[in-house]
Amino acid sequence: MSIIEAIDAKRDGRENSEAELRSLASGAADGSIPDYQLAAWLMAAYLNGLSPRETADLTLAMAASGERLDLTGLPKPWVDKHSTGGVGDKTTLVVLPILAACGLTMVKMSGRGLGITGGTIDKLDSVEGFRTDLSPEEMKGQAARIGLALTGQTPRLAPADKALYALRDVTGTVASVPLITASILSKKIAGGAETVVLDVKCGSGAFMRTLNEAQALAASLVSVGELAGLAVRSVVTDMDQPLGRCVGNALEVREAWETLAPGGEYGPATARFRELCLQLAGIALEAVGKGGLAEAVDALESGAAFAKATEWFVDQGADPAAILAAGWQQAPARADVKANRPGWIARVDARQIGEAAVSLGAGRRTKADEIDPRVGIECLAPVGSGVAAGQAVLRVHARDDQSAQRAALDLTRAVEVVDGEVFASPVLLA
Amino acid sequence: MSIIEAIDAKRDGRENSEAELRSLASGAADGSIPDYQLAAWLMAAYLNGLSPRETADLTLAMAASGERLDLTGLPKPWVDKHSTGGVGDKTTLVVLPILAACGLTMVKMSGRGLGITGGTIDKLDSVEGFRTDLSPEEMKGQAARIGLALTGQTPRLAPADKALYALRDVTGTVASVPLITASILSKKIAGGAETVVLDVKCGSGAFMRTLNEAQALAASLVSVGELAGLAVRSVVTDMDQPLGRCVGNALEVREAWETLAPGGEYGPATARFRELCLQLAGIALEAVGKGGLAEAVDALESGAAFAKATEWFVDQGADPAAILAAGWQQAPARADVKANRPGWIARVDARQIGEAAVSLGAGRRTKADEIDPRVGIECLAPVGSGVAAGQAVLRVHARDDQSAQRAALDLTRAVEVVDGEVFASPVLLA
Repeated sequence: MSIIEAIDAKRDGRENSEAELRSLASGAADGSIPDYQLAAWLMAAYLNGLSPRETADLTLAMAASGERLDLTGLPKPWVDKHSTGGVGDKTTLVVLPILAACGLTMVKMSGRGLGITGGTIDKLDSVEGFRTDLSPEEMKGQAARIGLALTGQTPRLAPADKALYALRDVTGTVASVPLITASILSKKIAGGAETVVLDVKCGSGAFMRTLNEAQALAASLVSVGELAGLAVRSVVTDMDQPLGRCVGNALEVREAWETLAPGGEYGPATARFRELCLQLAGIALEAVGKGGLAEAVDALESGAAFAKATEWFVDQGADPAAILAAGWQQAPARADVKANRPGWIARVDARQIGEAAVSLGAGRRTKADEIDPRVGIECLAPVGSGVAAGQAVLRVHARDDQSAQRAALDLTRAVEVVDGEVFASPVLLA
Repeated sequence: MSIIEAIDAKRDGRENSEAELRSLASGAADGSIPDYQLAAWLMAAYLNGLSPRETADLTLAMAASGERLDLTGLPKPWVDKHSTGGVGDKTTLVVLPILAACGLTMVKMSGRGLGITGGTIDKLDSVEGFRTDLSPEEMKGQAARIGLALTGQTPRLAPADKALYALRDVTGTVASVPLITASILSKKIAGGAETVVLDVKCGSGAFMRTLNEAQALAASLVSVGELAGLAVRSVVTDMDQPLGRCVGNALEVREAWETLAPGGEYGPATARFRELCLQLAGIALEAVGKGGLAEAVDALESGAAFAKATEWFVDQGADPAAILAAGWQQAPARADVKANRPGWIARVDARQIGEAAVSLGAGRRTKADEIDPRVGIECLAPVGSGVAAGQAVLRVHARDDQSAQRAALDLTRAVEVVDGEVFASPVLLA
């Protein structure tokens, strides 16, 4: 099997065979195919596309390019949840305990954030003692005890994806629906899941800016998943404004905790976040025949999900005293962005808020950047809120007054107030 | 200027700016742009094309990526001649002396052969003493004395082309008309020429198999040449059968010498080769306003071209005794391929004969292969010849009997004899 033939075929708009795609994935994983040939193939695949059959073959080849987490012995169903990434997206922290409380086995690997997209591992690293480096054995043991385990990504799973993703990042070949599909699904398959709920974000703070693009990716994930033997349910959800009230690592864990705690109070932004968590959980329960939205609501409102989350955090090493006292880390400096006129909030720009959060230290511009877990931004008035002139609409949490003031100044452009009443788009778009 | 932006633009079907193409060429030449990014750009350019303006900018950027031969002081016009490569193509050896005899300054860099395409430098290396490693100063000095100098390619001229060509060879991006155009013209411009006659070969033994492809390349060479300030005349010529009687290095020099010698005798295959040499020389003379076909014929028939060729060979180090006695190297073993029936020759397959010549040792499969200058194949009956059963149609020259017999056996499929009379296509196709 010659890589040149695989490149020629894809260049000329022909399909690659399963054997060609397997060689490509293993050659990417072990470095035996030079980067320049992979890059030529990636650009040809970007421009000429991959059929669902090719994408499924590539997915399975990438999943088989390294180790695979074997969940044998754990109670079924084995379920995973994934989001394409956005600003303020902490759904994993709420959806996993809900589903584990409903009897599903949730074994998940999460990533770190890069750019404006936050990462679940960074959020959990803000919790004193929480371990995000569980071994495969520890993952299985914990999932057997409490139905739930989460760890950081290991390079031993789907190494072909790691190699190809690094190349795509520097060759202009990231924005390809088949290549994104194979990248996401290969990691889910290598992680051992049989059913996955996929949240495709859409809007200014997401990779997919338009509904058409997001729907194309969501459809591809489902159809390729089916060909690859993975049950996928996908939804397209709004990422024009940040998800929920909080953006920033410790702030987001705290908001998730408030959402989990039964009988808690929360404003309209957190209500929107809570609704999405319940919808995602309901879809997962339906997918595995264990109920639906009603069961998810019950698990959350009864306190079962909160109890499961507490068990999870403690089992994974978090300091119980810190959690019980809600002793989340807090940044020393604050500054508010205020409405300059009365009216209705028409825009809370997810991208601009994400950029500001990165500047404050909540995220990374390059992989080497250090994160400050305490900093971030609270969105006090989501789209559709009525506000008075001078009312605080954003609250900056910063490491010092100077950066707080600068962020607040930058963020005046991120919020738009208009005269006429505004109704926010639903959080579930499709 | 970011290479990523240049890749993105080409990927999305937009034009690259002159500055982007200059960065790309200099980054390819000095190695500062990684191969994988060049490969991604090459594939995007292959699939989305380059406009004539982009191709001209790339050509000039590649020509400027290294040294440039400065012909200042030599009499104008400064003319070069180039062929896209074929089997039995020794036109340079005849066209250069004709044009130098007509008063043009011919300064040319030639390449070595690879695959079935022969290289002028390999042919001249078969001549005892002939130097193919002249320095730029030696080139200029010789051209000043006799109007004619030829040497091997130096990596110091157009190093961007060298780097990009090596990458194209292993990334499936060779067969792109704009990339081929820029590669050819950049070397001609760096070599100092102002007018170039380009012979685009077409047929089974050429890179371009169809007339449409060959005409597209010929048209691109002319229009891009004009934008880049180089006067280009291009023709498309037949390469379905080998050009002339001989294929193989010493054999071809000998055929060229016989063609140059006034009053010599030659068969129909060499007549076809001679006609092409005269046509190419006539086009060059017309292009620079120094006459045309009649002047070329006169230079050849009067013996002026032969005298110039003798001067050239001797000036460049060849042993005069060897040339005068026509003491060309000869292979020790021979074998003939005979017509299996009477009739007319309908096909003498250039590709199969080229492959057989490589197998005999006349060419290289990889750059490291050694060449045997003596071996090759004579085509005794070109397309359109009437032959008797048992008449020799091909003659193999080999280093031993075994390889001669094997080649003769292989070559029985390269010649087709039919009942009805056949007329060969003209050597000039367009």
